[in-house]
Amino acid sequence: MKATVYVTIKQNVLDPQGSAVEGALHSMGFDEVSKVRVGKYLEFDLNITDRAEAESRITTMCEKLLANTVIEDYRYELV
Amino acid sequence: MKATVYVTIKQNVLDPQGSAVEGALHSMGFDEVSKVRVGKYLEFDLNITDRAEAESRITTMCEKLLANTVIEDYRYELV
Repeated sequence: MKATVYVTIKQNVLDPQGSAVEGALHSMGFDEVSKVRVGKYLEFDLNITDRAEAESRITTMCEKLLANTVIEDYRYELV
Repeated sequence: MKATVYVTIKQNVLDPQGSAVEGALHSMGFDEVSKVRVGKYLEFDLNITDRAEAESRITTMCEKLLANTVIEDYRYELV
């Protein structure tokens, strides 16, 4: 299976990286841009055939390593 | 409009961050994981109504700032 994980900073948490990118875009003349949020995007292969097991393993990976659940949200896709 | 941009390292370029994450996952017992690729994920609002113009502006933003097109690929979604 192929997994894609999206890790984003929670809405109520300040996103300094997003603010920096927004500022840079504005300084380059892209004033139409607002509310920039920056996150991580991971792709990987999973050598598991059972979907439920794959979902459980990905959740554990996210909770333990891929996302800092205090300040980040995560979601994933499995194909 | 809401834009989502995905920036990933090109397939033929070494992804040290991906290798580091893969090693960490393996050391935590997630041996079923392979080919980990890590990239950036950006969300932002665009104060543009014309889709063609929005696409053109995002392409320019990606080419100029959001992606290092020498080693990275980018794609985007507009909703």
